Amino acid sequence: MVEHSRREMSSEEFRHWGREVVDWLADYWEQVDRYPVQSQLSPGDVRCMLPESPPEDGEQFEALLRDVQEIIVPGLTHWQSPNFFAFFPANVSGPSVLGELLAAGLGVQGMLWATSPACTELETHVLDWLVDMLGLPRRFKSSGPGGGVIQDSASSATLCALLAARERASGMRCRDEGIGLPLVAYASTQAHSSVEKAAAIAGLGAGNLRLVQADEEFAMRADCLAQAVEEDRKAGRVPFFVCATVGTTSSLAVDPVSEIGRLCRRERLWLHVDAAMAGIAALCPEHRHLHDGLELADSYCVNPHKWMLTNFDCDCFYVADREPLLRALTVLPEYLRTVPSESGQVIDYRDWQIPLGRRFRALKLWFVIRYFGVAGLRRLVRTHVALAREFADWVSADPDFRLAAPPALNLVCFRHVRGDAANRELLERLNSSGQVYLTHTVLDGALALRLCVGQAQTERRHVLAAWELIRAVADGL
Amino acid sequence: MVEHSRREMSSEEFRHWGREVVDWLADYWEQVDRYPVQSQLSPGDVRCMLPESPPEDGEQFEALLRDVQEIIVPGLTHWQSPNFFAFFPANVSGPSVLGELLAAGLGVQGMLWATSPACTELETHVLDWLVDMLGLPRRFKSSGPGGGVIQDSASSATLCALLAARERASGMRCRDEGIGLPLVAYASTQAHSSVEKAAAIAGLGAGNLRLVQADEEFAMRADCLAQAVEEDRKAGRVPFFVCATVGTTSSLAVDPVSEIGRLCRRERLWLHVDAAMAGIAALCPEHRHLHDGLELADSYCVNPHKWMLTNFDCDCFYVADREPLLRALTVLPEYLRTVPSESGQVIDYRDWQIPLGRRFRALKLWFVIRYFGVAGLRRLVRTHVALAREFADWVSADPDFRLAAPPALNLVCFRHVRGDAANRELLERLNSSGQVYLTHTVLDGALALRLCVGQAQTERRHVLAAWELIRAVADGL
Repeated sequence: MVEHSRREMSSEEFRHWGREVVDWLADYWEQVDRYPVQSQLSPGDVRCMLPESPPEDGEQFEALLRDVQEIIVPGLTHWQSPNFFAFFPANVSGPSVLGELLAAGLGVQGMLWATSPACTELETHVLDWLVDMLGLPRRFKSSGPGGGVIQDSASSATLCALLAARERASGMRCRDEGIGLPLVAYASTQAHSSVEKAAAIAGLGAGNLRLVQADEEFAMRADCLAQAVEEDRKAGRVPFFVCATVGTTSSLAVDPVSEIGRLCRRERLWLHVDAAMAGIAALCPEHRHLHDGLELADSYCVNPHKWMLTNFDCDCFYVADREPLLRALTVLPEYLRTVPSESGQVIDYRDWQIPLGRRFRALKLWFVIRYFGVAGLRRLVRTHVALAREFADWVSADPDFRLAAPPALNLVCFRHVRGDAANRELLERLNSSGQVYLTHTVLDGALALRLCVGQAQTERRHVLAAWELIRAVADGL
Repeated sequence: MVEHSRREMSSEEFRHWGREVVDWLADYWEQVDRYPVQSQLSPGDVRCMLPESPPEDGEQFEALLRDVQEIIVPGLTHWQSPNFFAFFPANVSGPSVLGELLAAGLGVQGMLWATSPACTELETHVLDWLVDMLGLPRRFKSSGPGGGVIQDSASSATLCALLAARERASGMRCRDEGIGLPLVAYASTQAHSSVEKAAAIAGLGAGNLRLVQADEEFAMRADCLAQAVEEDRKAGRVPFFVCATVGTTSSLAVDPVSEIGRLCRRERLWLHVDAAMAGIAALCPEHRHLHDGLELADSYCVNPHKWMLTNFDCDCFYVADREPLLRALTVLPEYLRTVPSESGQVIDYRDWQIPLGRRFRALKLWFVIRYFGVAGLRRLVRTHVALAREFADWVSADPDFRLAAPPALNLVCFRHVRGDAANRELLERLNSSGQVYLTHTVLDGALALRLCVGQAQTERRHVLAAWELIRAVADGL
């Protein structure tokens, strides 16, 4: 199979190496718990193993796969390890990965309906399914003036929401004329960093995002929001956008969406609800209260790529009225005009997002929903939530530790009683052991460790081992 | 293998279905020329074959694969068909698709160096390789103050360039304070629609993007640019950003980058060069003049996902100075702080892009460069360019047809002599035949057909068959 300066990979070769890669991945998943969860390499360690220059002649695929094992794997932080408890999860599954493989091989662009009708229609359809699966308001379905679209991330969804809000607030003039008003946006101090990033990108300035005070459970205080809006109005500024969070990154706090929503209606502010990870829990009826008040929201997003076995990227973004979004993002050059588009009968998703090109991401989401069934996905959520609750009980029962926030869904924030330095040292030792990976946050001005249960392979024994390790390391401090 | 409400796909099942999907793709590529290139379905045809509700219990993978064949494939426009000559190509290859498969299965997040060092370091390294491969200025290498990053698309690269420019022009104050100046951006009338979209998103307003007149070969007139800048300054506005295009979407026209660059230096404007597809041709020394003047650019982008066998998405974006970009896009919440980041020794690519999360896209690009070698990639470019030239010769020699623009690289713009209505009818009949897929543009106020040669499997016989079909259909008009 040696051949220099190849023009193509032959069909036989693809079949052969495709099987090898599939087996390599299956082996990897079987053994992923044996690797240090967080890569133990130092800056520059990977690069110094790579040749200075690219090869003039082609190499054999075998050499690539060998280098993946020898150079890349030691440089990975293993997000699919059952001992990965850091950040929020980004869990994957066989059906999802095979959906991604198919999408890559088909290589279609879904920028316009005409450039691959199935890519657009499957996306619309599966996003309608998800409205039912999560008990979202019907106004987010494509049958009315609203609808859903897959974005790469909640960051992009938040930006799109903010752009649509900006357009509506400016009487649909901002797209053409620029920001002519002293616009002000709002989110809680606990909101995700992407809200600040969106305000910066959109040209509002991060300083015109008000970070509203949170209560003792880290949820936005609606009374403080009302006050901030009033003060801004008095000062001649123009409030236009509120981002409420269902499940903050630090502690999974849930903002009072109903109360915020009523205020937004009254004040005519765009309400975006960011439920990036936590929204997935609404698969289960017992968690559906997370979405209380959502019927008052103008837009919403949730990430199957976090906690629904769908590999990144797959953020589902919904709007109740697509017009301001399209107005903000549509540009129609001659070379993209098509007959179906001009008929008004079809969706062209390029106008619902920042980039023009788009992959066939609905395929993997469709595969996941069908392969696991709604019941299977629900079971995964329940398993993770039960494990996190058990962990929280262990923490509560241990005199050396305290919960740092009310345990919520699959996340437990906790700290050792001996203060920040001890907690920092504890975290550092845990992660450099390679046996687990946790991350931290600051709550009430003090460091807290976060343990989030969300990987596909995580079982009770992994959570228990993590807790035993935490206690052992803490004892040795 | 029937099991309801699955929690996981077993390793054996993944190996089995992985092989099936690999074989399915190999079969698909072998037969892709037999499908109508553009999907022949009508709006709604795909959706009406999909069940109203998602399944409560899991389904067998076999059922998914069957539905891909029966429901999805007829709804695809086959971008990988050798008879696809529309838009710009988005060619894929075996090694790229297998790289994507690995990236999906590893499921790592490259948002921070620490969240997978190999993901960041391989990206930096391969983007440095590409600087050498395309003969780009050394200032785009990561060894100095600049460097490269993979974006999803040239649209996002253009937006990032504009945001960095906006930050620099505002004395690094726009990120926090918002747009306080009457900023004006420039591109030619032939520039990609994403420049207008970026101006809208960034809050400048699309009306503050000046579309500068192009010459008879559709390249930006540097004298008109100079005049526009002067007029805006006189009117009290603040010119800050120019997007020059190397290879416009309509006709692959190349703006005079050297001349524009000198003007930008003199006027202290940020120069971004968008070489989305055409830049790949610089793999070949005989096309490297495309990059003349690039040493004057502040940023640059080129898309391996268009013409370098790397499946979408993979846009390579470079800056000569990373500081304004990082200033525009960095937000650092507590939960993302890591020791390596604070050491200043590593790159955290989340600060180089709009979203936070990111896939391990460098893997597929690394695979492509190594498997084909630089010589193999160069050969692909030369093959496509030669085929397009031959097609242009056939057009020139036919009294019924005229070239609509100078043939450039792998694109030929042409038209039938009988005017717009005839050309529209010709295009409609060609595409609805399913035998080829071409798109159109408007040049000099008249419709033109575009034939772009760029798919991996396209050979001389396909281009010849396309020409024979075009002539036959034209004869029947």
